[in-house]
Amino acid sequence: MTKYQTIAGQIGEAIRSGILEPGTRIPSVRAVAGQHSVSTTTALEALRSLEGEGLIEARPRSGYFVLNRAGSVAAAPRFQFDSELEEDARVHLSIVGSPCRVRFDLATGDPGLYPLDRFGRLVRRASYRSPLLLGALARGTGHAAFKQQIVRSALDHGCRISPEEIIVTNGCIEALNLSLRAVTSHGDRVAVESPCYFVLLQMLRALGLVAVPIPCDPLRGMDLAVLAEVLQTTRIAAVVSVANGNNPVGSVADDEDKAALVAMLADRKIPLIEDDMFGDVCFAPSRPPALRSFDRQGGVLWCGGLSKTLMPSLRLGWVAAGRFTAQVQALKYTSTMATSELFQVAAAELMENGGYTRHLKRLRQRLARQHAELRQAVVRHFPLGTEVSHAEGGYVAWVRLPEAEGHPVSTRQLFTRAREAGIGFVPGYLFGGREFDDCLRLNAGYPWSREQEEAIAHLGQLVKQRQ
Amino acid sequence: MTKYQTIAGQIGEAIRSGILEPGTRIPSVRAVAGQHSVSTTTALEALRSLEGEGLIEARPRSGYFVLNRAGSVAAAPRFQFDSELEEDARVHLSIVGSPCRVRFDLATGDPGLYPLDRFGRLVRRASYRSPLLLGALARGTGHAAFKQQIVRSALDHGCRISPEEIIVTNGCIEALNLSLRAVTSHGDRVAVESPCYFVLLQMLRALGLVAVPIPCDPLRGMDLAVLAEVLQTTRIAAVVSVANGNNPVGSVADDEDKAALVAMLADRKIPLIEDDMFGDVCFAPSRPPALRSFDRQGGVLWCGGLSKTLMPSLRLGWVAAGRFTAQVQALKYTSTMATSELFQVAAAELMENGGYTRHLKRLRQRLARQHAELRQAVVRHFPLGTEVSHAEGGYVAWVRLPEAEGHPVSTRQLFTRAREAGIGFVPGYLFGGREFDDCLRLNAGYPWSREQEEAIAHLGQLVKQRQ
Repeated sequence: MTKYQTIAGQIGEAIRSGILEPGTRIPSVRAVAGQHSVSTTTALEALRSLEGEGLIEARPRSGYFVLNRAGSVAAAPRFQFDSELEEDARVHLSIVGSPCRVRFDLATGDPGLYPLDRFGRLVRRASYRSPLLLGALARGTGHAAFKQQIVRSALDHGCRISPEEIIVTNGCIEALNLSLRAVTSHGDRVAVESPCYFVLLQMLRALGLVAVPIPCDPLRGMDLAVLAEVLQTTRIAAVVSVANGNNPVGSVADDEDKAALVAMLADRKIPLIEDDMFGDVCFAPSRPPALRSFDRQGGVLWCGGLSKTLMPSLRLGWVAAGRFTAQVQALKYTSTMATSELFQVAAAELMENGGYTRHLKRLRQRLARQHAELRQAVVRHFPLGTEVSHAEGGYVAWVRLPEAEGHPVSTRQLFTRAREAGIGFVPGYLFGGREFDDCLRLNAGYPWSREQEEAIAHLGQLVKQRQ
Repeated sequence: MTKYQTIAGQIGEAIRSGILEPGTRIPSVRAVAGQHSVSTTTALEALRSLEGEGLIEARPRSGYFVLNRAGSVAAAPRFQFDSELEEDARVHLSIVGSPCRVRFDLATGDPGLYPLDRFGRLVRRASYRSPLLLGALARGTGHAAFKQQIVRSALDHGCRISPEEIIVTNGCIEALNLSLRAVTSHGDRVAVESPCYFVLLQMLRALGLVAVPIPCDPLRGMDLAVLAEVLQTTRIAAVVSVANGNNPVGSVADDEDKAALVAMLADRKIPLIEDDMFGDVCFAPSRPPALRSFDRQGGVLWCGGLSKTLMPSLRLGWVAAGRFTAQVQALKYTSTMATSELFQVAAAELMENGGYTRHLKRLRQRLARQHAELRQAVVRHFPLGTEVSHAEGGYVAWVRLPEAEGHPVSTRQLFTRAREAGIGFVPGYLFGGREFDDCLRLNAGYPWSREQEEAIAHLGQLVKQRQ
């Protein structure tokens, strides 16, 4: 046996016997070389041969990780992001969100859709009454009146939560981040809908978690049959679902599917993190129930926020963390300590006096109308065979382009060309890799205008040129 | 050989050969039992015997972890927090900060010390001019005018930073948290001053990092000789230092020591995270330089914030992240996305027109006076042999109680008794374990009053009763 075979054999044995668990990081090439007093070339050879055996895998910039035990358990599907794609993603993410003329990119609305002046007045009044509100309760989990309004508003759609389990956060992103950290450990696998909101994918990566994609249908949401299969073969530490107004596909799951998902995970004691940011802006006459409404065991961490409903980019969110409340509280404390109280007080007043409910009703109607306009424009201007999701809630539509001369097209070059013309959108691969290279996400947050119509026509032209 | 010995032998071999690296988590008792088809009792016996050999250690609620290789490298010192102590810590931390009559606990000042009304007016004016300021730049790293003021103010004390490397955060806690995550991986060791700010200790734990204590002298700060020794034998992923107005001991390090610390770490390419929250409230005539001023390689992540200077509990902080800027930006994005702009605009205006500098001068003088009053009261009322730190900056004083009848006393019971009398302080063990059980931290943030004098007298009585 050569040196590298000896080393590979030793590490392979550790993996097969379970000493090195799936998801564990293997010592670096340099470290392996040092331990066995061999060159880094030999060490690398050993690791590459283990990779060839399917025992470990290289992750860009992170090193080698132990895969699921070969032979005993099928490898779970994973999002395929190679290093080239990740480099592209970094560049594109740094561009998405920087201002451009026609804003089909971020999931946000025209300022005119929101009660900005009213909210501003409430903020000023609160700050005037008590200047100390500009700070935060030193160790608080949120302002009592605001929590009370979250509880009351949730009850309106049949979701029973208690103020004690609420942690107010700096936006829903923090709620998701703390929830994930509360229920997972480094290296764990987390099932998410595919395509998946790109910030969530980046978040999982930043936390050292592995995203396991579960197909998400534009009409029905997460495919529960696939999830059930994955759970048979793979240890999943948590599931994240955007059941209401899914980002990016726009689906709202049926009540039956919601109940089934919650029950499936409760049976297996797997925490379910619900991103319900868009629940209040779904288009059906009555607000669709949260997954959390079907939970009897405190296993659903219900995350929400106000930046899609009350005011664009307002950094005010929350999680009702059920039986994980103590863990989330502890993480909040060491992550951002507390959330400023001023906006909480103002939001509580707006929610209390009913103005918020009326505003939501109007906002939903306008978003539904804008979605219809956007969809029709895409149908008018994009090539035959283009598929557009029929969103049931939220801000965004998901578009899949037809093949050109029998070959799938990529929206990555389209992204650059569109930006040159001042038109923003989010390229599909950011939602999960090459599989979505022929897709794009369009924001329907702005009232329809001639400028938007022309922008969609221009986009359609660019697509046709590639064909 | 019995079964447990076989299992222990196998895992032990993996540790000794370096396959399982120091800091790695060992599979759970249940997992080990499953892998080897033995009972959990046998598996536990195997892990306990490895613990006895000094190869692994149990961490409460986290499982077993591989220690530094026995025999080859001396084990680094670690903070000793057993499970009983951690349970106490959880209880005490949940109490510290909840309101009590005499607030010697949190490091915060009387509202009368701050320009609350003025800041409130600036906030109202900004929100009136642009209601959208209530939100945040979707992917921004902070408001340009605020960053500019941070740069200018840093330059006043000889610290050159650029706006491009600043990430504005929800308080300095988020700055520290993101900085740690940017430069470490799960299981890494981080050197900190001992005693250590309790939130930082909790943060390290929450991030799966191991705190390595470096003694911190109330006059000179971090002991660089000990640090140098530790660096010889232990892989340290980062160092965190509160060089100006250390929390809890109050020291300001000499310029020579600051330069030496920065150079020592630059040589070894170890990132230095500087918590400079108290740099602006040190009592010397001129503001002491930041560690960052001595950095020529972008290896110092300079963290600051306004809640100790402009307004209590204001969630507005920042980090100038040097060569780690891209990493911190990415983590900010997936942790809390962005920071609300309103307070940034108001703070920038206050800092720009000079009112802030005048305010800081007054605040420093008042804090210095309050420190003197507090120290004298402790000397008057506490038993002979009590040591009180002579803080050179910040809000807090560090007190060590003398032995009682030849035995060290604990401030944990004192904490409970004092709270019953409405008097808050922070018990010493929260800053690093039993070693500081005879210590307490007192806040000097409130103007001296008869009530405070009586509270210190009462505390002194309680201490004497234990003797």
